[in-house]
Amino acid sequence: MSTLHLDLSKIISDQSRIITKKIEDCYVSDILGRLKGTADAVVFPINTQEVSDIMKYAHTYSIPVTPRGAGTNLVGSTVPQHGGIVLDFSRMNRILELDPETLTVTVEPGTLLSDLQQYVEQRGLFYPPDPGEKASTIGGNISTNAGGMRAVKYGVTRDYVRGLEAILPDGTVIQAGGKNVKDSSGLSLKNLLIGSEGTLAVLTRCILRLIPKPTVSFSVLIPFNSLQTGIDTVIQLIHQDANPTAIEFVERKVAALGENFLNIQLPYQNAEAFILMTFDGNNEEAVRSNIERVKIAAMKNGALDFLLLTDPQMTENVWKVRGALVKAVEAVSEQEPIDIVVPINRTADFIAYVNQLERESGVRMVSFGHAGDGNVHLCIIRGDRDDSAWQKDLSRVMTKIYTKSHQLGGLPSGEHGIGISKKPYFRMTTNPENLALMRRIKLAFDEKNIMNPGKTYSD
Amino acid sequence: MSTLHLDLSKIISDQSRIITKKIEDCYVSDILGRLKGTADAVVFPINTQEVSDIMKYAHTYSIPVTPRGAGTNLVGSTVPQHGGIVLDFSRMNRILELDPETLTVTVEPGTLLSDLQQYVEQRGLFYPPDPGEKASTIGGNISTNAGGMRAVKYGVTRDYVRGLEAILPDGTVIQAGGKNVKDSSGLSLKNLLIGSEGTLAVLTRCILRLIPKPTVSFSVLIPFNSLQTGIDTVIQLIHQDANPTAIEFVERKVAALGENFLNIQLPYQNAEAFILMTFDGNNEEAVRSNIERVKIAAMKNGALDFLLLTDPQMTENVWKVRGALVKAVEAVSEQEPIDIVVPINRTADFIAYVNQLERESGVRMVSFGHAGDGNVHLCIIRGDRDDSAWQKDLSRVMTKIYTKSHQLGGLPSGEHGIGISKKPYFRMTTNPENLALMRRIKLAFDEKNIMNPGKTYSD
Repeated sequence: MSTLHLDLSKIISDQSRIITKKIEDCYVSDILGRLKGTADAVVFPINTQEVSDIMKYAHTYSIPVTPRGAGTNLVGSTVPQHGGIVLDFSRMNRILELDPETLTVTVEPGTLLSDLQQYVEQRGLFYPPDPGEKASTIGGNISTNAGGMRAVKYGVTRDYVRGLEAILPDGTVIQAGGKNVKDSSGLSLKNLLIGSEGTLAVLTRCILRLIPKPTVSFSVLIPFNSLQTGIDTVIQLIHQDANPTAIEFVERKVAALGENFLNIQLPYQNAEAFILMTFDGNNEEAVRSNIERVKIAAMKNGALDFLLLTDPQMTENVWKVRGALVKAVEAVSEQEPIDIVVPINRTADFIAYVNQLERESGVRMVSFGHAGDGNVHLCIIRGDRDDSAWQKDLSRVMTKIYTKSHQLGGLPSGEHGIGISKKPYFRMTTNPENLALMRRIKLAFDEKNIMNPGKTYSD
Repeated sequence: MSTLHLDLSKIISDQSRIITKKIEDCYVSDILGRLKGTADAVVFPINTQEVSDIMKYAHTYSIPVTPRGAGTNLVGSTVPQHGGIVLDFSRMNRILELDPETLTVTVEPGTLLSDLQQYVEQRGLFYPPDPGEKASTIGGNISTNAGGMRAVKYGVTRDYVRGLEAILPDGTVIQAGGKNVKDSSGLSLKNLLIGSEGTLAVLTRCILRLIPKPTVSFSVLIPFNSLQTGIDTVIQLIHQDANPTAIEFVERKVAALGENFLNIQLPYQNAEAFILMTFDGNNEEAVRSNIERVKIAAMKNGALDFLLLTDPQMTENVWKVRGALVKAVEAVSEQEPIDIVVPINRTADFIAYVNQLERESGVRMVSFGHAGDGNVHLCIIRGDRDDSAWQKDLSRVMTKIYTKSHQLGGLPSGEHGIGISKKPYFRMTTNPENLALMRRIKLAFDEKNIMNPGKTYSD
């Protein structure tokens, strides 16, 4: 038995919750599995005390610690680059308290998004953030400030975190925020932890804000004869004060991948692009009146049609296709997922640029995503390139794409985070003074650089 | 001419924008005027470059810098405790750009809230944060994460800041955020700056999020025969999924002060307490249907009546009284303003405790405020106490009140900030590990401790 195993078993009583031999790849990678790290141990803590004790131990011996939820991230955030301990939160997945009076739910960070959503919706409540990956954990969602489709109306994960319990790299337990709605009491440690990708501290408890569950929800499919017309129209649709929940766009050629993958056919096969919207609320008439205004604006701006989806099967099919796009792309070829965000009025410029770059570079790219908030999902397709050609082409087009989005006032990540994969492009497009400041802030938390080292803003 | 004046005049060409002699009290105090600091110079910069140059200079010579907007804060945030330079932003008050496509407005930090609100509303847009003091500046609002009445529906200042330009203590200019809706790109410097009370950096430009202006707005006055019944009912009203904009409470005895002050009479003179609500939106029927549900819930929970205010004069009077409460209290006596926040379901417990403490201590206290988010405004009344009796009694009841709110899971400030006045109570109710971490973060920004030293979490 290794010394590390022996030491950890003094903290974690149950031996089955410590792995130091034959560590499976899944624990040292992300969901894409391309980046692989190494670890000396994987530990499955079950409470705050254990996490704190492990951090104290790691701090004493300067051992790197990589926290992971479900490992569904796309940028290598959970890849241990310097060995050490992987802290797996899958056993800390309890929903601890639903407090209907303050409309909050308190969960452990390993709670799956899908479990949380189901739990609160069964009780007439609603957790609005809705990243595509429902098998992700709440701790992971908070660490990347995950977004998702409903962000247009409801905002992102940050907007639903009321309080956090976190363990500092030296094992200190802190509480940030709580069940209060307002807070002007000192620096917002909570907001600093949100989106920090496990580089500052480890989360052990999360207090989340809920809202009453909307009683009605409608989906709308709007076909266009060009993507440009569709995207240009989005700005007009946003200005109808119709409070849409989601505004997604899909190009015809991308939708076709999803249709083939699922063996489903969407209407308007001749359309070049679709805008897909949802509207929800608690007053059907008001929601319908909002939809009516959007319909008028859409038809005035070149929509081929405006399909209010009343057939549940059709609605399900449409969202199935939207939800399956990444998998449909991956069934054809390896791909590099990108989640650049630009100001919403630059979305059309950005996509036009990507299309032009696709023609010029010969590298196939498909784009779809959150038209309502400028968060464009782009898959860069490997095709049959060998490793060296793929790395060369990928790096070439990524450099151009990130440069362009930066010129448009955009940011390298709207919801996935930076991790390892996006680091070169984050550095390329971020002021060195901002990076230096982030590193100094990290030192304020983690002077030994043991918390998920090597990620995002690190040197 | 002093050396300091000579040096500053190399940075600020216009001598009239530098004061080094006979510095008026208003520049070294807050709006309450009880705390007074000293300053060696007051400077009125007009652009980012000047602010950066002043900070570089201050950094070189380790001169404390105290930024101030309109100085309307209530906790001494703008009181220079260690001399040095007061950086007054009243000349940086331009609205730089309204971008209707991204629904953002870019302003200089000295822009008054009232000017911004008027500007955007004239153009069919809406800046939801609505702190009571409209003559405050946007920079000040951001620095304290100001809240206000409309927070129940719309959230607080933090929720409307898209991007900031800030000057670090060494003069470095950084951009944090921008016009993007989503951001998962590194640590959120923007969110760390919001609410930091000028202790980390100085703001020079603010990009704010706007929404379409609501087309309808209704106010409702709900009288109760006891404050306890009213506050208890608030939880029920919140659970009607009626999306109220504001939920305020006023005790009869407090309302009477406002009525006398303004020479206005509210209806239901025999009621012991009022809940005052607003509802807004873009669909009158939907808003009315929401109000109807709230009415049923209110009447079922002991409301004496439910007055939908249709007469504009009456509506104006009711809000005038609510808006004048602090001034009405101050017309009677000096008072200590408190803005404790507790979880919304503990508001009634907290107010009951305050009433009990009032009886026991003989110190008069009036409470009113934001029932919809647990942000209780409390005025502790001096009466005819001499200085020593006042300090003794004030400190005694404040200690008890902050201890109680802490026990209830509350925080010392929901929207005013900590500044100097609330420091002892913030320290008393904040985990030493949190305070230590905040100080280390400050060092990451300001190793010479020149940015508004001595405030909030400082030693």
